[in-house]
Amino acid sequence: MATDTATPPAEGGAASGSVRPQLDVPAIDVPALKTLLDGKYVEIRDLVRTNLAEYASILDEAETMTRDDFRERVKDVLVEMAATGQTGMGFPQEYGGGGDIGASVAAFETLAYGDLSVLVKTGVQFGLFGGAILQLGSEHHHEAYLPDLITGKVMGCFAMTETGHGSNVQALGTVATYDPQAQEFVLTTHGEQARKDYIGNAARHAELAVVFAQLEVAGTRHGVHAFVVRIREGGRPCAGVGVEDDGAKMGLNGVDNGRLWFDGVRVPRTALLNRFADVTPEGTYESSIENPNRRFFTMLGTLVQGRVCVGGAGINAAKVALAVAVKYALKRRQFEATSEDEEELLLDYGMHQRRLFPLLARTYALHFAQEVVAGQLHDVFSGTGPEDEDQARRRLESRAAGTKALGTWHATRTIQECREACGGAGYLSVNRFAALKADTDVFTTFEGDNHVLLQLVAKGLLTDYASDFEDLDQFGMVRFVAGMAVETVIERTNVHKLLERLKDVLPGGDQWDQEAGLLDPDYQLAMLRFREEHMLAGVARRLKRGIDQGLNPGAVFSRVQDHVIGAARAHVERLVLEAFVDKVRALPEGDQRAALSLLCDLHALTTIEADRAWFMEHGRLTVVRSKAISREIGSLCRRIRPLAGDLVDAFAVPPEMLRSPDLVG
Amino acid sequence: MATDTATPPAEGGAASGSVRPQLDVPAIDVPALKTLLDGKYVEIRDLVRTNLAEYASILDEAETMTRDDFRERVKDVLVEMAATGQTGMGFPQEYGGGGDIGASVAAFETLAYGDLSVLVKTGVQFGLFGGAILQLGSEHHHEAYLPDLITGKVMGCFAMTETGHGSNVQALGTVATYDPQAQEFVLTTHGEQARKDYIGNAARHAELAVVFAQLEVAGTRHGVHAFVVRIREGGRPCAGVGVEDDGAKMGLNGVDNGRLWFDGVRVPRTALLNRFADVTPEGTYESSIENPNRRFFTMLGTLVQGRVCVGGAGINAAKVALAVAVKYALKRRQFEATSEDEEELLLDYGMHQRRLFPLLARTYALHFAQEVVAGQLHDVFSGTGPEDEDQARRRLESRAAGTKALGTWHATRTIQECREACGGAGYLSVNRFAALKADTDVFTTFEGDNHVLLQLVAKGLLTDYASDFEDLDQFGMVRFVAGMAVETVIERTNVHKLLERLKDVLPGGDQWDQEAGLLDPDYQLAMLRFREEHMLAGVARRLKRGIDQGLNPGAVFSRVQDHVIGAARAHVERLVLEAFVDKVRALPEGDQRAALSLLCDLHALTTIEADRAWFMEHGRLTVVRSKAISREIGSLCRRIRPLAGDLVDAFAVPPEMLRSPDLVG
Repeated sequence: MATDTATPPAEGGAASGSVRPQLDVPAIDVPALKTLLDGKYVEIRDLVRTNLAEYASILDEAETMTRDDFRERVKDVLVEMAATGQTGMGFPQEYGGGGDIGASVAAFETLAYGDLSVLVKTGVQFGLFGGAILQLGSEHHHEAYLPDLITGKVMGCFAMTETGHGSNVQALGTVATYDPQAQEFVLTTHGEQARKDYIGNAARHAELAVVFAQLEVAGTRHGVHAFVVRIREGGRPCAGVGVEDDGAKMGLNGVDNGRLWFDGVRVPRTALLNRFADVTPEGTYESSIENPNRRFFTMLGTLVQGRVCVGGAGINAAKVALAVAVKYALKRRQFEATSEDEEELLLDYGMHQRRLFPLLARTYALHFAQEVVAGQLHDVFSGTGPEDEDQARRRLESRAAGTKALGTWHATRTIQECREACGGAGYLSVNRFAALKADTDVFTTFEGDNHVLLQLVAKGLLTDYASDFEDLDQFGMVRFVAGMAVETVIERTNVHKLLERLKDVLPGGDQWDQEAGLLDPDYQLAMLRFREEHMLAGVARRLKRGIDQGLNPGAVFSRVQDHVIGAARAHVERLVLEAFVDKVRALPEGDQRAALSLLCDLHALTTIEADRAWFMEHGRLTVVRSKAISREIGSLCRRIRPLAGDLVDAFAVPPEMLRSPDLVG
Repeated sequence: MATDTATPPAEGGAASGSVRPQLDVPAIDVPALKTLLDGKYVEIRDLVRTNLAEYASILDEAETMTRDDFRERVKDVLVEMAATGQTGMGFPQEYGGGGDIGASVAAFETLAYGDLSVLVKTGVQFGLFGGAILQLGSEHHHEAYLPDLITGKVMGCFAMTETGHGSNVQALGTVATYDPQAQEFVLTTHGEQARKDYIGNAARHAELAVVFAQLEVAGTRHGVHAFVVRIREGGRPCAGVGVEDDGAKMGLNGVDNGRLWFDGVRVPRTALLNRFADVTPEGTYESSIENPNRRFFTMLGTLVQGRVCVGGAGINAAKVALAVAVKYALKRRQFEATSEDEEELLLDYGMHQRRLFPLLARTYALHFAQEVVAGQLHDVFSGTGPEDEDQARRRLESRAAGTKALGTWHATRTIQECREACGGAGYLSVNRFAALKADTDVFTTFEGDNHVLLQLVAKGLLTDYASDFEDLDQFGMVRFVAGMAVETVIERTNVHKLLERLKDVLPGGDQWDQEAGLLDPDYQLAMLRFREEHMLAGVARRLKRGIDQGLNPGAVFSRVQDHVIGAARAHVERLVLEAFVDKVRALPEGDQRAALSLLCDLHALTTIEADRAWFMEHGRLTVVRSKAISREIGSLCRRIRPLAGDLVDAFAVPPEMLRSPDLVG
C-alpha cells in the first residue's frame, strides 16, 4: 500500500486513541531497504559481512584470550581479511589495491558491525599508515611500501599524537634535523611530553612508523612533516627507538597502542614523505606551498579519509546496538498493562518507543549523511569531483569533521540508551553492549576530538572557507572574524533575507513558521537553516563585540566558545537532515518512501524539539506549536512501532555479530 | 573575605569582560569543606578512606588478574575490611554489628571511591543478603546467621531477579510449596525464564541464598516470600541446586554473578523469613498483613537501604571522575589562546567550564540530597523518626527511588563527560575512567531500573501516598488516579494557589517570575515547585481523559508514560535543589557559604536552563529572562573557575584511588 506520509495533517493518527492506530502501515520490503542502505557498494559490504561471519569467533575471543594472545589474533584476522581484498580497496590497483575510495570507506564502515579492535587495527594499518604513505609520499615511497602494506606483510603505525599534544598538532615536540653531511634526518624526542603516545600498532606489530616531527634544516624550523622510520626489526625495537606499551585500555585491547621515542634516530633523506615539501641533498628546503600553515593543513587535509571512516564506523556500531535493543523489546514482556493475563511487550510502552525510535531515526539520518560525505570524499580523491577542487576539499574537510563528531557522539549515546533498555541482560558481555560501549568510547576523541572538530567546522563557516582560512590559528580566527570577515558573515547569514526566501517557498507567507505543516520537510529544513544562520551571525557579532571592547582574542574566544560549537553543530544538523530529506524525495512513491518519511519526520521533529527552547527564544516557535511538535512525535513513534523490527533488520547486521542469544533469539 | 553571593545582581560579574573577573573570590578551606561534606559520619568515612588506601593495589589487580583470581581477591578484601568493622555498621551490636544505619550508608558510599567490585560484593553480602535476614527474618534467623555473615565467614546471596522477571517481582516464577507431612518447603524452578539470574555471589562464593518464591500452601498461592536456602556445601552446589556462571560482564568482574535453579529443593519450615508471614506446622498461612499486595510491598520496603546505598555510590563515583578531570584540566594546556607563547589551560576554556562545572555543582547538590535521604533512612529504621511511621516509610521509599535514579544517571553522564574531557589519556585503564565507566554502568539498572523507579515515585505522588497505594498495580494506579484521586491531585497541585503563595514570598508580586533575582533561591525553588505541581496535575488530567474516553488503562498509561516519568523527575529535582539550598542557608556567613552559594546557583540555573523550553511553554519564563539565565550560567562558571581545584579536593578521594599518575600528578 503506497502511502505518502510526507504531508499528512499535523496530528496524524495521534488522536485516535489506541496504542496502535489503525492507519495504513507501510509494508517494508527488508531486502529492498537493505539494498537502498547499502547503496553503490552492496558488493563490498556483503563481502565484509561474509568475512565477519567467517571470523565471528573473535567476539568471544576478545573476552577469553589474554591481551597478548588477542592482539596476535586480531593481527592474524586482519591479514587474512586483507587477502580477500576487503581492506585494500582504497589503494591504486597497480600496487595491489582496489582503486575505489568509496568502496574502501564502505568496507570499513561495515567492518564496524564486528569486533572493533579488528576495525581500528585495520584503520591504523591501511587508513592511517597506508594513507599517509599514499597521500604524503611520492612514487618511490609507493613502490617501496604499498604492495607489502596492502597485504599486511609489513605492518606500520601512524606516529602523530604525543603525550603532551593531541589536537594541537602544530605544537608537536619531536624534531627531525637535517644532517647534510650524511644526507640524513636525525629524529629526537625532547622530553616526556614529546613522546609519541597512544599509537596503534606501535607496542608490538609495527615495523615502520610514519613519524610527524618538526623539520629543522640549517637551524630553521619549517613546521611539521612526516617521515618513514623503521622502528622494529625482527620483532625488536631498532637502536635509538624507545617503545613502551600503553597497557590496558577501556576497550580495543586487541590493538597494541604504545609510546615511541627517538634518541637521535637517523633516517635517509628520502624517508621524508615529500609530496608537498622536500629537502635537497645540500640542505635546501623546498615546497610547492609557500605558506607554512597552509602547507601543514594541506598535508593534514589529505588524511581526511580517517575522519570519514570513523564517523561511519560510529554510525554502524549504533546500528548493532539498536538491532539488539529493538529485537529484545519485541520479545521481552514486563508488567501486565493492557491485559491482565499477559505482560506487555517492552516496545509497546510509550516511554520505550520514545527512548529508542528517535535514535533509530537519527541513525538512518546519519547513515544517509555519511553516504553524502563518503561520496564527496570519493569524488575529491578520485578527481571526479567538481572543478574547484580547493573549495571542494575544504567543504569535504568541514563536512567530514562535523559528521564524525555527530556520528560518534550518536554512537556513545545510542549504545548507552540501548544497554539500559535491555536492563541487566544488557550488562552481560555475551549480549554485546560491553564491547560496543568500551570499544567505541574513544571514537569521540580519536581522529580529532569532537569539540575541536566542531570548532574547525565553525572556523570554515565563519570565514566562508576563505582561501586563507587554513592560515588561521585560534588567535587569527578570532581577529579575522572580528575584523574583516564579520560584515561578510553577517551579510551572508542575513536572517531577514533568509526569511524572505522562505516565505516564498512555504505556505503561510510571513507566518510560514506557524502555518506550514509540521510534517512538511521544507518547514523542517527551514527551521534548521534559520537556526544555523542566526547562530552563525550571532557568533560573528559576539566575537566582534569582544574585540571592539579591546579584550584579548583568546579571552573573547573562550567566552564565545559554546556559541561557536553550537553554531557548528546547527550547521551539521542541517546537513544531516538535508541528506535524509533528499534521499526520501528521490524515492518513488510507495511503501518504502512512506516508511522512510515517517522516520525522516521523526528525526526532524525530535531535532527541533531538542532545541525548541532556542526556537522559542528566537521567535520561530510558538508555545502552541512547540507542544504540537511533542505530540506529533508521540504519534510518529506509535506509527513506527509496527515497522521497528524491519527497520533494524534492514541494517543486515550478520546475526553472528549480534550474539545475545537470549535477547534476540 | 566573607561574600554572600546569594543575592548579587543577576548579571554578576559577567559583563566585566575578562576571563577571570576581578570579583571577590571566596577562599575555600578545604579541610573545613571536607568536614561539611562528611557530615555526621567523618569517622567511618575516614576509616573507609584508610582501608581503601591500604588495599589500593586492587585497582591494578582488577586489570591484571584473571577473572577467577580477581573474584577471590575481592572476596578476601571484603573479609579483611569486614574485620575493621567497616561493613557491619548497620547490624545490631548484639550480633557484632555497629548498630548505626546512617554510618553503614556512609561507609558504603565512601567505598565507591575505590574498586566497585568490592563495593558491589559488599552490598550483596551485607546489604542484600544480610539485610534480608535482618529485615525479613525473626530472632532465630538473626541468631543463626548474622554473626557469621557480618564477619564474612558465611557468604550469601540475594536470589530475587529471574531471567524472565526483573522489575516485576510479583510475577516471579519460582515456587515454594509447603509439605505439611515433612514440615518442609519444596522449591522448584519452572522453566528457564524462572531461573534466578544475575545473582551476585551465586556463581562461586555464596553458601546460602535468600530465595524469593511464590509461596503455595495447600494449593493456594500467597504471593512472593523469602526463604533461606543452602545452595553450596564445601564449595559444591547442594543436591537439586543448579548453578551457572553468568560469565564475563561489562564491569564488576570481581563479583561472581550467576544463575540458580531449584529442582525440588527441600528446606525446613523455619527457613521461611517469617517476620511478616508464617506457615504453621500444620500448614496454615498466617500474616499480620491481610492484603497480599500490601504485604508484598511492606516486605520489599524493608529493603530500601539498598537503593539509598546505590544512589550514594553513584554520586561518589562521579566525584572520582570529576576529581581526575578537573585536576587534569588544571595541568593540561592546549592551543595558544590568550598568549602566543604558552598554550592555554583546558580549564580556562569557556566550553570546558561549561562541560564540567554544572556537573560539579550537581554532584554537590546530589551529595546533600543523598545526606537527607540517608538521614531519613536512619531515622525510620532506628525508630527515631516522626510519629507517623507508615507515612514516613512511604516518603522514604519514594525519595530513595528518586535519588537513586538521578544519582546513578548522573554518574553515567558525569563519568562519560569527564572521560571525554581527558581525551585519549582518559581511555587508558590506568587513568581510572575505564573501570569507573564499566563498573557503574549497571547502577542505573540494579536495585530497580531507573525508569521503573521514577514510575514508583510518580505513583506515590499521584495517590498522595494514599494508605492503599501499595495495593495498586499499574492497572489499578491508572484507574485510581483517573477515578477517585484525580480531583484530589488536581486540587492539591492547584497551580493558581501555588502562584498565590509564591507572590507573597517573592518580590514582584504577580510578576515574581519576571522580577525576582535569578540568584534568589526562593525564585529558583519556586520555578521547580511550579513545574512539579503543574506536571503532576497534567498527568492526572491526561489519565482521566484517557479513561473517560473508554480506553484501556494500559494504553492510557503507555501514552502518558513520558509525562509520568517527567513529573517524577521534576519532583526529585525539586527535592535535590531544596536539600542544597537548605544546606547553604544553614551555614554561617563566610567564604564557605559564598563558595557553596555559587555552586548552588549554578546547579539551580542549569536545572532550569535544561528545561527552559518547558518553562517558556508554561508561561513562567520570558525569552529575555531565559537568555539572561544562560548568560548568568557563563558568569557563574567563570567565578567558580578559581575554586574548582579546591572543590574537588574537598571530596577527599584518597590519591591512590585517583591513580592517573600523568593526569593529576
